[in-house]
Amino acid sequence: MATASPQSDPLYQQIAERLRADIAAGSLAAGSRLPTIRALAAQLGVNRDTVALAYDALAREGLVEATVGRGTFVRADAPAPAAFEPKLSAGVERLLELERGRVRYAAPAGVVPLHSLVPDPSLYPVDEFRRALNRVLARGGRELLSYAGPQGHAGLRQVLAERLQATGMDVAPGGLALTQGASEGIALALRLFASPGETIAVEEPTYHNVLAVLVSLGLRAAPVPMRDGAADLAALERALERPEVKAFYTMPTFHNPLGTSTPLAHRRALLAAAARAGKPVIEDAYEMDLRFAGRPLAPLAALDGAGLVVQLTSFSKSLFPGARVGAIATRGRALDGIVALKHASDLGGALVLQAALAEFVGTGGYDRHLARIRRALRERRDALLEALAAEMPEGTSWTQPEGGLQLWVDLPGGVDTAALLPEALREGVLFAPGFQFRHDHRPSSGLRLSYAQADAAALRRGVASLARALRERLRGGRAAEREPLAFV
Amino acid sequence: MATASPQSDPLYQQIAERLRADIAAGSLAAGSRLPTIRALAAQLGVNRDTVALAYDALAREGLVEATVGRGTFVRADAPAPAAFEPKLSAGVERLLELERGRVRYAAPAGVVPLHSLVPDPSLYPVDEFRRALNRVLARGGRELLSYAGPQGHAGLRQVLAERLQATGMDVAPGGLALTQGASEGIALALRLFASPGETIAVEEPTYHNVLAVLVSLGLRAAPVPMRDGAADLAALERALERPEVKAFYTMPTFHNPLGTSTPLAHRRALLAAAARAGKPVIEDAYEMDLRFAGRPLAPLAALDGAGLVVQLTSFSKSLFPGARVGAIATRGRALDGIVALKHASDLGGALVLQAALAEFVGTGGYDRHLARIRRALRERRDALLEALAAEMPEGTSWTQPEGGLQLWVDLPGGVDTAALLPEALREGVLFAPGFQFRHDHRPSSGLRLSYAQADAAALRRGVASLARALRERLRGGRAAEREPLAFV
Repeated sequence: MATASPQSDPLYQQIAERLRADIAAGSLAAGSRLPTIRALAAQLGVNRDTVALAYDALAREGLVEATVGRGTFVRADAPAPAAFEPKLSAGVERLLELERGRVRYAAPAGVVPLHSLVPDPSLYPVDEFRRALNRVLARGGRELLSYAGPQGHAGLRQVLAERLQATGMDVAPGGLALTQGASEGIALALRLFASPGETIAVEEPTYHNVLAVLVSLGLRAAPVPMRDGAADLAALERALERPEVKAFYTMPTFHNPLGTSTPLAHRRALLAAAARAGKPVIEDAYEMDLRFAGRPLAPLAALDGAGLVVQLTSFSKSLFPGARVGAIATRGRALDGIVALKHASDLGGALVLQAALAEFVGTGGYDRHLARIRRALRERRDALLEALAAEMPEGTSWTQPEGGLQLWVDLPGGVDTAALLPEALREGVLFAPGFQFRHDHRPSSGLRLSYAQADAAALRRGVASLARALRERLRGGRAAEREPLAFV
Repeated sequence: MATASPQSDPLYQQIAERLRADIAAGSLAAGSRLPTIRALAAQLGVNRDTVALAYDALAREGLVEATVGRGTFVRADAPAPAAFEPKLSAGVERLLELERGRVRYAAPAGVVPLHSLVPDPSLYPVDEFRRALNRVLARGGRELLSYAGPQGHAGLRQVLAERLQATGMDVAPGGLALTQGASEGIALALRLFASPGETIAVEEPTYHNVLAVLVSLGLRAAPVPMRDGAADLAALERALERPEVKAFYTMPTFHNPLGTSTPLAHRRALLAAAARAGKPVIEDAYEMDLRFAGRPLAPLAALDGAGLVVQLTSFSKSLFPGARVGAIATRGRALDGIVALKHASDLGGALVLQAALAEFVGTGGYDRHLARIRRALRERRDALLEALAAEMPEGTSWTQPEGGLQLWVDLPGGVDTAALLPEALREGVLFAPGFQFRHDHRPSSGLRLSYAQADAAALRRGVASLARALRERLRGGRAAEREPLAFV
């Protein structure tokens, strides 16, 4: 019924639009019941969440009404559109503009999901964490249901500080502030150093959501190209010399999207460049705990004698995202600033989840989980590398991560991977196209493959699908320009 | 050893400074052990958290080192101060400046805490909530430990939408976005409408943390005086006419700090003024569920046919703050903007706590809790009103809340309540002085009394202490200017 590509409307909006037309035309009459979410999802071959989003949009517009246990109905009294359309702030308008270009994936059944960095739910230690939650609530429940304060649970900061000390960092529990994952850490650290209109140096490619955070804060990105898996030093020095550039955001360990790690000597050189420029470094160490091969590399924060580095860590990739717990390690006035910003953002996080994590880490559960998940990820990475070597056409290259959840593939023949995505989906695989990791969204022949959610067999199927789509494209069997995807 | 007042250094810094001096002087030698937190807190008659903060500050500076199970020691190798002091953003510098003026309370044992709006932990339904957590984790654990998405748990939005519909609002689950308490809702709603340099109309007095959020975002406050417990209409109209004023932030129900509620006709008039000016209204309904007397008043969002109102609600005051769950109700592009901002802030909240709340609300636990807590709060309010009538000198006036956790007292004789606070503390009571609820922090003869944490007997003791301090002051027995408090 509709078409989808990274450039067209999100799938759920296409579904909503079709239903809107049906209601307007009377083929879905006032009072009639819409199909159940499950039934329509199966009929269209899309995710139930996508249908639920479409129904939500219609409900928000007053066209339909959900009634618990009975279903969703077309309203008899669908109101006129709201008379008042508030003027949104300039930052929010820019953010909504960016959002319109965001890739929204819908993975029909059978499609291999190599696009997502969400860790595999089948690997979450649910029962062990539930028991930790019970123990801490039984022990100290009342206090754990009050405010955490902006720095968060002291016990979790204690065990985290010990783990960070083991990487060589000089950090005390009082030097940590807990955040809602590294995500919130990014937003707080950017606000710490830069005011609207100012600029942050970022690697290119970089984590696409950092670009959204920059836009939402009215900040600009100064791209520093990645060369051989690390930020180009000369380009970094030029960027940091510019007075409007206030800090450098980097992912030196298991870079997103590249999967590469910055070598030790290069880390020291990055810090020396930052020291010469007198600009701080935001080290996003979001996957640091997921090393499954090679020798550990000291994080920037451990190499930093001067106080240049603000470091972000997270449990979201190494355990599960649902606790929404990460941490910022910093010191001095930067720490005072982070604490004040966190207080002004939401007063502090959820103490009970922080306490349960402290219990889980402190009793060895986290280390046991890391041993399991590193083994699983290493097997998956190996399967992915073998499949790439076996299936991909000549001229394709890829990175070889020693940890984390993703690697980067560069395709031959000048292929625009955003244009390839619909074809790959038809062949049965999803990936993250490279354009979205660039500050200006220009086309890219690169793509990110994640082994977070697919096991070895699925990885082999997915790579075979990707190779088929690419061969077809290289044979010129499809139009070279991006085309809409006939989806449902 | 030190002195404390709202104008001097925070207490923990005073403690840290004394220890610093002892270390520098050698009376605390390298390698020697500091007293335990518990012991020093007892010795000084302060809260343990205060001592912990002081130790944290010293650890951060590298002067002492905490070792699990052994204690805190003076470091032998206390490093030189960090060579690099990063330049913080202008917004963070302003925020730190504001923080320096913030009242930091330390309540020695026996002092009645009438300053805090944190609900009484002894009233939290800990076991019932723990059972709800267990049920949802046992049922759907894996998915609940993944990302929630920026709008949050659909089931909680469903039960919340039904409760809001019961107040007369036209809201579907898809029209809600869950937040980290109303606190995060405030920050998101302000960012939705205003860019740095622009202005928000706020009531005066208003919730002091809103003033901090404004500063952290580079926004200005346009104060609208409260008259007879509601925002002055003529002043509001003048404020909204100014082009740089982008929205009006209001607490029409159980106002913080006043405890008053805006009458129904006045609510309609506020909305009409906003509609004429074409400016949106942010309704903070953070205590809406805590009505224990009088007739319910429709929230602004229920009176709003045009789409003027963005409404914030929260479980923090009516249940407990620890779930860190509130909600924003809005529609159309404002909703799209909130969802995009929430995604850029932290990707979304903790699904597992949202699901447990949905279970707790859906199985009647929340309504049972509300019945209990409303009864308790009504008894406390009555005790507080009786004590005020019995104890306070002539010329004192106070508000009569029909719900919520606080009321407002205005003192006679031009007393500056910030200057009275140290004297009241000596007499055995803490309150929230009025200056901090004003955008310019000018002195106030008003103060906020909270009955969140004190039972009837404690409330009577607290008011008697307040009355003694005030009588002393009115007799001229103390200096009229603010004076430091000899504390420990």
